[in-house]
Amino acid sequence: MRRIKLTVAYDGTDYCGWQIQPNGITIEEVLNKKLSKLTGENIVIIGASRTDSGVHAMGNVAVFDTKSPIPPDRFSYALNQKLPDDIVIVKSEEVPSDWHPRYQDHIVKTYEYHILNTEVPDPTKRHNTYFVSYKLDVAKMREAAEYLLGEHDFASFCNIRTNVEDTVRTIYELEVLESECTYARNGHAAGRELTIRIKGNGFLYNMVRIIVGTLLRVGRGFYTPEQVKEILEAKDRQAAGVTAPPQGLMLMQIEYQDILLTKK
Amino acid sequence: MRRIKLTVAYDGTDYCGWQIQPNGITIEEVLNKKLSKLTGENIVIIGASRTDSGVHAMGNVAVFDTKSPIPPDRFSYALNQKLPDDIVIVKSEEVPSDWHPRYQDHIVKTYEYHILNTEVPDPTKRHNTYFVSYKLDVAKMREAAEYLLGEHDFASFCNIRTNVEDTVRTIYELEVLESECTYARNGHAAGRELTIRIKGNGFLYNMVRIIVGTLLRVGRGFYTPEQVKEILEAKDRQAAGVTAPPQGLMLMQIEYQDILLTKK
Repeated sequence: MRRIKLTVAYDGTDYCGWQIQPNGITIEEVLNKKLSKLTGENIVIIGASRTDSGVHAMGNVAVFDTKSPIPPDRFSYALNQKLPDDIVIVKSEEVPSDWHPRYQDHIVKTYEYHILNTEVPDPTKRHNTYFVSYKLDVAKMREAAEYLLGEHDFASFCNIRTNVEDTVRTIYELEVLESECTYARNGHAAGRELTIRIKGNGFLYNMVRIIVGTLLRVGRGFYTPEQVKEILEAKDRQAAGVTAPPQGLMLMQIEYQDILLTKK
Repeated sequence: MRRIKLTVAYDGTDYCGWQIQPNGITIEEVLNKKLSKLTGENIVIIGASRTDSGVHAMGNVAVFDTKSPIPPDRFSYALNQKLPDDIVIVKSEEVPSDWHPRYQDHIVKTYEYHILNTEVPDPTKRHNTYFVSYKLDVAKMREAAEYLLGEHDFASFCNIRTNVEDTVRTIYELEVLESECTYARNGHAAGRELTIRIKGNGFLYNMVRIIVGTLLRVGRGFYTPEQVKEILEAKDRQAAGVTAPPQGLMLMQIEYQDILLTKK
């Protein structure tokens, strides 16, 4: 029996998220079915991050155990032949048999949230960006982001939680990046694209999307940057901004540090 | 009666191209229907560029005549309320009543063709890029592109044509641009994105896609850059490379120069 780690990319548009649901197809379900078909075994994967409906990934992680003779690094190729074209295995490799993608001491997750800030929506980016036509003060958004850096209790930035849950997380990086949008580059309409890139040791339910919703309120002038400090200290979901919609969000990578991942 | 010019953006994935077809929905058909509904008149638009099935646009152009009291610049807003979210009117404005989007002396069209050149496909870009996993020599592609610049008979780069058609066109710019791909930026897989940006006074049927297919053959080492000169001189479609697939192609803008476009 070997444990195989998969790095998985997907367009989440047509899926009810990662985790198996009673009504609606999910990424996990498709991977279980295709892996079971490929190996002839009853495969149930363990995922690292249960992304929501409509959220995308470039580097989600899952593991499964198999007796298949397929070489570990060839699972990506074999599986990609069977998968629909909105799910791609980027990499497959063997890991120690007790290695778990969620329970590790040093995990760094990177998300990006893509905002199209222009006069009119771009139809080719409707599934991958959040379209916002109002004026945004990016300098103020960056100022507000500073307050969220480091270790904090992010209870104000979590949608559903149990009483026992630890809501302390550490954000290592939180950048608001600006780039030219296609309309502006071709002289059609004023605007730009914003990417909110966030790196942390873990994220609560909807945490990235609530942070984005809050930074957008700052950019719009509804909150001052300083108010984000108060929102954080309130430890109350009601204090923060709305949850930004799913399609702008992408899980970029999950890094497992200080761990000898590959089985020699 | 006023003539209104529309700048139209669309995601061509779910359409059988621009022009009305007996079997399958088209951009032109949707625009005619929605405009007729909006104005209560029987509107038939005249388009500038009949893009193929699966091809996208940021700035295609169409005109129509109307007696509607809607102010010219408000048509974009009114129409966007009725259109599906894969078609967007970027701009609407009044033009002289005899202004035609195809028959003008000085037209400059800009297309971009997007290639994802990485080890594995990116599922979130499958409708907007052509995925090519083989190694490409970009310097050689740029060298080959030089031969296509200027006024030439592009008969080798045209798929279907009538005997009477004039196949002489002028290419003003042909660039092969390189940028980082998301996989590489996040440490998942080696690769890059290539954008072939081309500006000309007009393009024959499938011309941009055949140029791209030919440049890809140069990049792969199947043709030398110098052979592109021979292909051009052959004036024979059989001499050039294959037609690159539609989803990588986007009509960026159509510029009408030396023309007083807006009716004062």
